[in-house]
Amino acid sequence: MRKFNFCAGPAALPEPVLRQAQEELLDWQGVGCSVMEVSHRSPEFTTVAEEAEQDLRDLLCIPDNYKVLFLQGGATGQFSAIPWNLFGAGSKSADYIHTGQWAEKAIKEAGRFGEVNVVASSEDRNFSYAPAADAWRESKDAAYFHYTPNETIGGVEFPYIPEVNSPLVADMSSTILSQPIPVEKYGFIYAGAQKNIGPSGIAVGIVRDDLLDRSLPDIPRSLSWKVAAEGQSMDNTPPTFAWYLSGLVFKWLKAQGGVEAMAALSQKKSQMLYDFLDRSDFYSSPVAVESRSRMNVPFVLADDSLDKLFLKESEEAGLLALKGHRSVGGMRASLYNAVPLEAVEALVSFMADFEQRNG
Amino acid sequence: MRKFNFCAGPAALPEPVLRQAQEELLDWQGVGCSVMEVSHRSPEFTTVAEEAEQDLRDLLCIPDNYKVLFLQGGATGQFSAIPWNLFGAGSKSADYIHTGQWAEKAIKEAGRFGEVNVVASSEDRNFSYAPAADAWRESKDAAYFHYTPNETIGGVEFPYIPEVNSPLVADMSSTILSQPIPVEKYGFIYAGAQKNIGPSGIAVGIVRDDLLDRSLPDIPRSLSWKVAAEGQSMDNTPPTFAWYLSGLVFKWLKAQGGVEAMAALSQKKSQMLYDFLDRSDFYSSPVAVESRSRMNVPFVLADDSLDKLFLKESEEAGLLALKGHRSVGGMRASLYNAVPLEAVEALVSFMADFEQRNG
Repeated sequence: MRKFNFCAGPAALPEPVLRQAQEELLDWQGVGCSVMEVSHRSPEFTTVAEEAEQDLRDLLCIPDNYKVLFLQGGATGQFSAIPWNLFGAGSKSADYIHTGQWAEKAIKEAGRFGEVNVVASSEDRNFSYAPAADAWRESKDAAYFHYTPNETIGGVEFPYIPEVNSPLVADMSSTILSQPIPVEKYGFIYAGAQKNIGPSGIAVGIVRDDLLDRSLPDIPRSLSWKVAAEGQSMDNTPPTFAWYLSGLVFKWLKAQGGVEAMAALSQKKSQMLYDFLDRSDFYSSPVAVESRSRMNVPFVLADDSLDKLFLKESEEAGLLALKGHRSVGGMRASLYNAVPLEAVEALVSFMADFEQRNG
Repeated sequence: MRKFNFCAGPAALPEPVLRQAQEELLDWQGVGCSVMEVSHRSPEFTTVAEEAEQDLRDLLCIPDNYKVLFLQGGATGQFSAIPWNLFGAGSKSADYIHTGQWAEKAIKEAGRFGEVNVVASSEDRNFSYAPAADAWRESKDAAYFHYTPNETIGGVEFPYIPEVNSPLVADMSSTILSQPIPVEKYGFIYAGAQKNIGPSGIAVGIVRDDLLDRSLPDIPRSLSWKVAAEGQSMDNTPPTFAWYLSGLVFKWLKAQGGVEAMAALSQKKSQMLYDFLDRSDFYSSPVAVESRSRMNVPFVLADDSLDKLFLKESEEAGLLALKGHRSVGGMRASLYNAVPLEAVEALVSFMADFEQRNG
């Protein structure tokens, strides 16, 4: 029996997508084998790859002067790839906003290959908010400006897009496809698939054409966006099953009404949970109201000695993976696109009941 | 209906493995969601990961002083990773044997970061053989010695293991798990999964402990074997579904009798096809007898104007993906572990019939 899954990633996938994959797992499109067993260069798979790209372009209105890349190594791989791809055109320094653990990892890796200017940080209040736009000043010669629109662990989401002079780079792993985005404001957008796109093992990159010629000369081939772009993300064998599943998710998203519909739904889902938290003295949200994530909702129990019981009983109630990240504790409910409204209703209902019995 | 699949990669997977994956795709082990939808750090997935490693260790008798890594970026990613991981302990030069397209890619990438000595090459005869062991002399100060035990495109397999003084590095993408190997003779073994292990999107690395401390200081984190080893291949979210499927393949291999049984079977399958080719004037193998691959069998028709018809009719007969690599033309039948003996029997039978009708 399928349960409600609040995992932060690898996360819930749309059930109709899994059902289609299941149905055709041994004999895909009458080919006589699985989609996993065909050459990535076969006409059948090439169609999958091209349709996935086109559907993603449609969903996010990606302009023609942007390349769409399907990459390996996850968003973490891009923490290395970003400086290697952008530090070769003169400046070897970049601006970063520090908003928590994912930003920190990106900063640490970039700092190994050039200079990193942390132009703003929310460390002073335990990474519980997104720094305001007037709180920082960008560097004059930055090769790029990096931020993390949504911190999966802290549950902090930027309510605005930074206006900067250098190419804006964003780790959208946990928010991509959850709302319309003005792609033209960005130089490079990247996202690990395992939250809002598909299974783990594939990442999406969206890069503005003119940034493909700025790499350091000795960039490892596997990190090069230019190589990926020139080879249609098939310089080597891509993760075909993950690509195929991502493509099914894109088609499912279109059928649901696209990112506009997802924006409305994610607003509704997260608001329902935050409203409940704010009315309660038993639970609370540690995140500043204006920076609360629609995707990842951390919350704590006033009496943390009840944490174990909460997790045990919630799991028994069919509500999976509510444990907070090992580094911060507490609880976290991730509400990505594939998590239905009914899941949040069931969660809130369980939480109210748990409070009544233990409050 | 499942057909016989001779694809060079992504290649055929064992049908029982696909059936199990299909059955539990929506609700895995009663967890209430897919294996794709659970955290890689959950106890359930950790068990999958650990069992996969242990089963691989059992299958290949991997000594305790070797780490097993599950990596992203494919074998091609390792073409970069190898020099970055091994050029930091003094010598920045390496010996390579050049036996065809895959060796060439490995050579080209390593040459960007240090000196490459091509100690032997089979280019003189169009990469149709493996250079003999007495045909080359290794360098005195090589950081490592690299070769490609099996060239997937050319269909050339080394009948011996090079005896060298520097750490021996081998791209075993297309032969791993097809026979016992003395792991202790190697410093680093690597293999993209999509031929003899599982689906594309994951690669296996087997590295001797003492080689984990030889990396160049500015190695990108995502390429570091040490980082992968210290993080149990979970420095970032791994490709969980590919890891899980690989694990199922390892269990299937054990049930089949392990690599000894696979060695006997691959010998039988390939011999059946080579015997047929050698008896025929209509078909021929371009590869020197002593270097013929058990895994990839390229062959040509004496009259190449019949190629198209051969491919059309073989596909209609349920024999998939017999077209040779786009760079060399002709035909190629890949006979990895998951390709049953019946597939080769059906292929030979079709080929005999085709010859009779067109010879």
